[in-house]
Amino acid sequence: MEKITSKDNRWVKEYAKLASLKSYRSQSGRFALEGVKLVCEAFQSGIRLPVVLVTGKCLERSGTDLAQAMEWGEWFLIPEELESKLTQQISPQGIYAIGEKLDKILLPDTIKKSGKYVMLCGLQDAGNVGTIIRTAEALGLNGVIATAGTCDFYNPKVLRGSMGSVFRMPCCIVGEEGRFLTELSAAGVQTCASVVDPGAIPIGEAVFRDPCVLLIGNEGNGLSLRTSVLCEQCVTIHMKGKTESLNASMAACILLWEMTK
Amino acid sequence: MEKITSKDNRWVKEYAKLASLKSYRSQSGRFALEGVKLVCEAFQSGIRLPVVLVTGKCLERSGTDLAQAMEWGEWFLIPEELESKLTQQISPQGIYAIGEKLDKILLPDTIKKSGKYVMLCGLQDAGNVGTIIRTAEALGLNGVIATAGTCDFYNPKVLRGSMGSVFRMPCCIVGEEGRFLTELSAAGVQTCASVVDPGAIPIGEAVFRDPCVLLIGNEGNGLSLRTSVLCEQCVTIHMKGKTESLNASMAACILLWEMTK
Repeated sequence: MEKITSKDNRWVKEYAKLASLKSYRSQSGRFALEGVKLVCEAFQSGIRLPVVLVTGKCLERSGTDLAQAMEWGEWFLIPEELESKLTQQISPQGIYAIGEKLDKILLPDTIKKSGKYVMLCGLQDAGNVGTIIRTAEALGLNGVIATAGTCDFYNPKVLRGSMGSVFRMPCCIVGEEGRFLTELSAAGVQTCASVVDPGAIPIGEAVFRDPCVLLIGNEGNGLSLRTSVLCEQCVTIHMKGKTESLNASMAACILLWEMTK
Repeated sequence: MEKITSKDNRWVKEYAKLASLKSYRSQSGRFALEGVKLVCEAFQSGIRLPVVLVTGKCLERSGTDLAQAMEWGEWFLIPEELESKLTQQISPQGIYAIGEKLDKILLPDTIKKSGKYVMLCGLQDAGNVGTIIRTAEALGLNGVIATAGTCDFYNPKVLRGSMGSVFRMPCCIVGEEGRFLTELSAAGVQTCASVVDPGAIPIGEAVFRDPCVLLIGNEGNGLSLRTSVLCEQCVTIHMKGKTESLNASMAACILLWEMTK
């Protein structure tokens, strides 16, 4: 295995750029992923990993788990001192891969036919986005839609929070929310806005058709009125305690649970 | 307002010790909390704040929000350079308070009478513990029980994740799990173990009595068999996708939702 020792090596710089810049991920069609489990999940999901940087310690510990993935792509040995250029983790696992985004784009035509989908409208917290994708997969949803203003699916924190679900769930990014929702409605897709409003339908009483898209709003402001009026129904979770509201991923969890059960 | 400039000041050291040491929090009955919102929530919940360290910038920005709390306790002005001794936040808000734990201990006698409770058995992730307490409050539970091995309620990350719910929810810590569960059962309290087991009762079909305690296990290993056999029933969430399981706080969210609705 070839060694890399310089922090100016092209792959070290390429990895760091992919880890930090959404625009570069978008332009290159590649992304950065770290950790043994995530690398294995990506490989098993059919993601191509053209370049992998790994420490000797990681190979010693996890060589068996990585054996299959090692048959593909170029692997480079890096010293532990280089890791600080690659990760913000306090206890990194010593493996950094460049992956090629999978072409598993969810098409409006698929959504119009059948299935249950969640649509993330402007969510900013990468941890929330990752957790919601993971929950959506666990509960059997058919795909995840995000507005352009939502945190990137290939953001390192989203990947980590989703535990690899990003690699498996069909997903798409929507430019113009309004036009997209109008198009869905015209095709008979049920659209449900989740809102904090005592006048909305309590989620336990809502009836979901198929196909159906549930919209979740931004952490701070929720869905805009402009967006929610375009939806067929507004649903809500009635709160009993003093907390202002559940956090976005907990609320999403309850909504998706009721939608799919 | 008196000024503190030295990192060796007794309150700076006291705060740092309370923020980092569970044993010291336990021994002193005090804890460390940071951020404008959390300080206000604590004050409104009746928590005494004998010492508060604050930067000039924080006072300028949030003086109005803090006005009521400022009538109590000793407030000290600190320079921004001192903040690195007090916080691990990347963008700290400049306010650090020492609080006195509230005496709102949940007694076994209260649990035996009525209510719905969640019991955290060995949870290690402070973010999960905080989120579960917040969710428990939002869904109207009557209290949170934790085993001695569970992450401390007054851990700074738990406080942050709970958004102040820790200050309001009745809670208690249980030394011997087995004896506690046996005692509850003998008193007619329903105990429900949440497990990953296709043979357990699907959570949507479970019947919950009052009083009732739902047990949630450790992130990695779940509940021990020794614990779950002591419970009246075992409940589970049936997973549809490929994710191994929901994360602990998402699973707890669905379980508590079904338990309280």
